[in-house]
Amino acid sequence: MAKIALAIHGGAGTILKSKMTPDLEREYTGGLEAALKVGWKILEKGGSSLDAVESAVASLEDFPLFNAGRGSVFTHEGKNEMDAAIMDGKTRRAGAVAFVRNVRNPIALARLVMEKTEHVLLAGEGANQFASEMHVPLEPDEYFFTEHRWLQLQDAIATGRVQLDHADAPKFVFSNQQAKGTVGAVACDGKGYLAAATSTGGMTNKKFGRVGDTALIGAGTYADDVCAVSCTGHGEFFMLGVTAYDVAARMKYKKLSLKDAAGETVGRLTEIGGDGGLIAVDAKGNVVLPFNSEGMYRGYIVKGKIVTDIYKG
Amino acid sequence: MAKIALAIHGGAGTILKSKMTPDLEREYTGGLEAALKVGWKILEKGGSSLDAVESAVASLEDFPLFNAGRGSVFTHEGKNEMDAAIMDGKTRRAGAVAFVRNVRNPIALARLVMEKTEHVLLAGEGANQFASEMHVPLEPDEYFFTEHRWLQLQDAIATGRVQLDHADAPKFVFSNQQAKGTVGAVACDGKGYLAAATSTGGMTNKKFGRVGDTALIGAGTYADDVCAVSCTGHGEFFMLGVTAYDVAARMKYKKLSLKDAAGETVGRLTEIGGDGGLIAVDAKGNVVLPFNSEGMYRGYIVKGKIVTDIYKG
Repeated sequence: MAKIALAIHGGAGTILKSKMTPDLEREYTGGLEAALKVGWKILEKGGSSLDAVESAVASLEDFPLFNAGRGSVFTHEGKNEMDAAIMDGKTRRAGAVAFVRNVRNPIALARLVMEKTEHVLLAGEGANQFASEMHVPLEPDEYFFTEHRWLQLQDAIATGRVQLDHADAPKFVFSNQQAKGTVGAVACDGKGYLAAATSTGGMTNKKFGRVGDTALIGAGTYADDVCAVSCTGHGEFFMLGVTAYDVAARMKYKKLSLKDAAGETVGRLTEIGGDGGLIAVDAKGNVVLPFNSEGMYRGYIVKGKIVTDIYKG
Repeated sequence: MAKIALAIHGGAGTILKSKMTPDLEREYTGGLEAALKVGWKILEKGGSSLDAVESAVASLEDFPLFNAGRGSVFTHEGKNEMDAAIMDGKTRRAGAVAFVRNVRNPIALARLVMEKTEHVLLAGEGANQFASEMHVPLEPDEYFFTEHRWLQLQDAIATGRVQLDHADAPKFVFSNQQAKGTVGAVACDGKGYLAAATSTGGMTNKKFGRVGDTALIGAGTYADDVCAVSCTGHGEFFMLGVTAYDVAARMKYKKLSLKDAAGETVGRLTEIGGDGGLIAVDAKGNVVLPFNSEGMYRGYIVKGKIVTDIYKG
């Protein structure tokens, strides 16, 4: 039996300890721990990495402080539009959705794309229509309405900014303290199979139907037999750097370890001006969580012991 | 001065010589030659690879027999929805659009995404809104209506198939003879800078807002300082294999030549059951055009001499 492993993130960005309150810190840590426990339980019972990452991400989507599912930020039009992707390293199949609305757990819908269609990515009205046909749980707009997200939008509109969830917005303490808009999980199960899942509520004040890296296989999410990767940060740079797949490529073609490959990939991200981080696991159950931003909400379990952290160093 | 180079494709798939007429063959060849000349003229005058690939792809989009721009296939709803992407290897920036309607040249809109926004990919209504704001040339629905595409849709609906443009549909000779739904160009300019561009009209009878590989950087389109790649084929496999970037990764990390890297990438595509091909160029002006399907509409220019071909071997 391979060494089971699980890592998660709740986003990366400008997360400064000086601006965090102990109460809020406890809340975030609680959200991370809950998701880790859900995923770990599955792995411990001999479940698949695919089930573990889906469940862990669904838990993070249900937690209102992370920018995914319930806690999604508002677009320019005051809507919540969510993206998610999942990839099964065992079969190398993947499913993803973009611009879905009112879906409680976009990650579950992404998995249905993988399992019930011949496609990899469904977007927009078509993806919402697919959600209806699959009868996935929907929630009313109020479910996704959280006051600090609404204030973020009003602030962003007022200042004319398209705001990634990490952006330093002096007017609202909350918007300083939010994770960059993504959650994700990677896992290695008892059979050594890997999986990755990522979900996001996008950018505050997003316009023009911008698609970020989360739903794109190879950019924000990737899994095969060498590693599974979930990214978080300024999506455009992850798309241009084909970041998630770049970790796998460095392992396969340069024969690097997971740690060295992920380190080089994040180094390259820094070179091109990209801000954020990633979590990754290999088939031996090694876990890495590198990032180049001020902080990244993150956690992992080794030998049953939960470790979570928010800040650098 | 580097050796300038240009290659294009008009799609790959089940293209059998036995089903082609000499007249149709001449038409296809004419379409390929026209696009090559447009791009080559730019490179010869010292223009950039970026301008060359954009112009060559725009020429292919204007040609009604290829599945892009004017010749786009119909979705299930009888609409034309087009995707396109362009990447500048010099700056490593890229722009892409998905689900655009009535835009004469989606590739020009993709370039505007790269140059006028902070984003990489715009999709759906937002992308169409961006097209309006940019005042790109639009065309009425009739412009995109070609009879054989409409017959393809009726046939696909009748048989319940989502049809890639290459699929062997015995009822209509035209649908056998169409290229798989993509056009693309790659170029190396006199300064050794590379660029890639790809454009498509998608799948006949497409439903549920399916996004293919064309608009996704790393999947169907990629360019950096080692190579530029444009893919065509069954998009889902190109997305799962992160195919365009995989060629670059094998060159950078395995230190392979363009020919060996592209050969391995297409070999891997074949292993996972993917059907199609790619065109690629490196910074020395070498060009390769590998594919694993029955045929691929393709062409390139070496030392001013135009070469075009359609079939295998």
